[in-house]
Amino acid sequence: MSKNQLKAGFWENEEYKIINQKLLPSQIIFEKMETVFDVKDAIFEMKLRGAPLIGASASAGMALSVKEWKEVSLEEFNKYYQMLLATRPTAINLKNVLDETKIIFEKNKNKTKDELYEILKEFSKTVHKRDLERNLKMGKNGVNYIKSLFGEKKLSVLTHCNSGALATCGHGTALGVIFSLFEAGMIEQVWVDETRPYLQGSRLTAFELSQAEIPHKIITDSTAGFLMSQGKVDFVVLGADSMAKNGDFANKIGTLSLAVNCNYFKIPFMTALPFETINKNIESGKEIVVEERSDKELLIFNNLSIAPQNSKGLHLGFDITPHSLLQAVITEYEVIEKPNAEKITSFIKKYEEL
Amino acid sequence: MSKNQLKAGFWENEEYKIINQKLLPSQIIFEKMETVFDVKDAIFEMKLRGAPLIGASASAGMALSVKEWKEVSLEEFNKYYQMLLATRPTAINLKNVLDETKIIFEKNKNKTKDELYEILKEFSKTVHKRDLERNLKMGKNGVNYIKSLFGEKKLSVLTHCNSGALATCGHGTALGVIFSLFEAGMIEQVWVDETRPYLQGSRLTAFELSQAEIPHKIITDSTAGFLMSQGKVDFVVLGADSMAKNGDFANKIGTLSLAVNCNYFKIPFMTALPFETINKNIESGKEIVVEERSDKELLIFNNLSIAPQNSKGLHLGFDITPHSLLQAVITEYEVIEKPNAEKITSFIKKYEEL
Repeated sequence: MSKNQLKAGFWENEEYKIINQKLLPSQIIFEKMETVFDVKDAIFEMKLRGAPLIGASASAGMALSVKEWKEVSLEEFNKYYQMLLATRPTAINLKNVLDETKIIFEKNKNKTKDELYEILKEFSKTVHKRDLERNLKMGKNGVNYIKSLFGEKKLSVLTHCNSGALATCGHGTALGVIFSLFEAGMIEQVWVDETRPYLQGSRLTAFELSQAEIPHKIITDSTAGFLMSQGKVDFVVLGADSMAKNGDFANKIGTLSLAVNCNYFKIPFMTALPFETINKNIESGKEIVVEERSDKELLIFNNLSIAPQNSKGLHLGFDITPHSLLQAVITEYEVIEKPNAEKITSFIKKYEEL
Repeated sequence: MSKNQLKAGFWENEEYKIINQKLLPSQIIFEKMETVFDVKDAIFEMKLRGAPLIGASASAGMALSVKEWKEVSLEEFNKYYQMLLATRPTAINLKNVLDETKIIFEKNKNKTKDELYEILKEFSKTVHKRDLERNLKMGKNGVNYIKSLFGEKKLSVLTHCNSGALATCGHGTALGVIFSLFEAGMIEQVWVDETRPYLQGSRLTAFELSQAEIPHKIITDSTAGFLMSQGKVDFVVLGADSMAKNGDFANKIGTLSLAVNCNYFKIPFMTALPFETINKNIESGKEIVVEERSDKELLIFNNLSIAPQNSKGLHLGFDITPHSLLQAVITEYEVIEKPNAEKITSFIKKYEEL
């Protein structure tokens, strides 16, 4: 894990705290989550984001929710489970972690409220800890795989959105692979897509790279293709919010366009994700729900309207990339090269009991 | 030409005026160009932009420059020719129109300063008038070609940057084709790429479409590929800043990425440009100079820094798209389908004396 790395969501002295990522990089403000409602709002308003962190913070939210329960009952549990689940539709980690809390609840439903709070809080701490461990493994697997493709030379990598410490419980998924590559002396430069409209690239990824003193340059999202055409991008690695059983995956809007450009310019295109990000219940990308957010997030910037008053926008949070465009999926267990339905299905079978 | 259309640069009562496009759409401010230095600054600072308008305003600049001349001499002429030429490197219209003023100067170098001012002013008025006429012809040719591809059905078209009345002396090139299609009842909806970092799409193209009451939606630049994958884009048409003799062309950064996506999703990709936008002296896109602008234009928005203080950006104004990705080039003379070196060269020969 790189030095100076901030924790985006964490338990400290029995309190759950987050960095308000909407204020980064100009202000580093930690906010205490007093209630499950604070967690719900933080996820919905994108004070925190990133599929693994959304999942982890939801586990904290479920622990905090116990304080709101009238009594220990499935009905009370479900009320907050549903409330948290409804915050963001695309990141499957949210549902997967909430489902884990449900199993824990079922096993402990004869306990008192205080006991359940402690049990769910301990589970949430475990979720945060295991996420960091997974990311470090993913980084190691990524380094080995990239070495197998390119040897040990210094590389220029391009990434989109933010899949670093700020999207997870430390180190990051795709940006974690980049951190690990940098530690291995294999990074020449990182091209950072600014990632409109929320600018997770220029605000968050550049911030993390800057803290870690990794050479990087910010570009507009539409610049990537031209850099590829000039031979200035060795490979692309980015995160994922949900992957279907055939390897199709949802990630921040703009991912598909990058994948298509990588395909045209013959540049390896990869995603890094934990096993948790695979949706074991859907066959293909067609079944992934893509979140549509308010067009105001696109048309108003820093309180300034950047479009005519009577113009509308379409703000899709994610897009779906077909597995055929993927060179590899980097996970905490192994790297799946040229993924397809058969490979992902057997990967799920191999690791689902762990 | 659509109703309510603003003129972006024009002679009025012997004065040359422009709209300051940096303030659109929130403020419509006309500025009088008192001197050639005002014109130079307006082009460099992007108060006006768009290859045809840059060319036309440069002709006004050369007329105004006469007021600064010590005497009528090639040396004095060249001083301002060079000054204007240096403002923006990519749009070839700038050089082509300046070269025309040079021919006029050579023919009239025995005239007085007052006479030369009048001659160059009249030429500049002609440049503005002929640009509008070209665009209307381009619109007509575009409608006929699109009809030949799709029949008379209503279409969803995507465009990038601004190639409308605000990029030209009226109607526009690619956006002019869209205006003409709308008048022909063939537009269902226009997808408007916001076009970072200057937001010519959300600020200017959406403004023009809004004024003309044409249905449109603004998207982030990276959304286009996903809309294509969903069958929501029938074709793409956009402008050009310079085209080589083989059909490779420079246009606003992001054009190449769209072209590659159109190729993958089998969507016709077209540019609309006047004959003037072809650089008759270069063989391929490799020879086109791509402008690099300050990274501040990318990293600071509305006086707010949107990136860490010590992060740098790369701000390329344009990219180069190979001719192999073009379905057609729509010009004022004819439509060149599947352009290549042979076709563009014979097109140049056919029309270069007109």
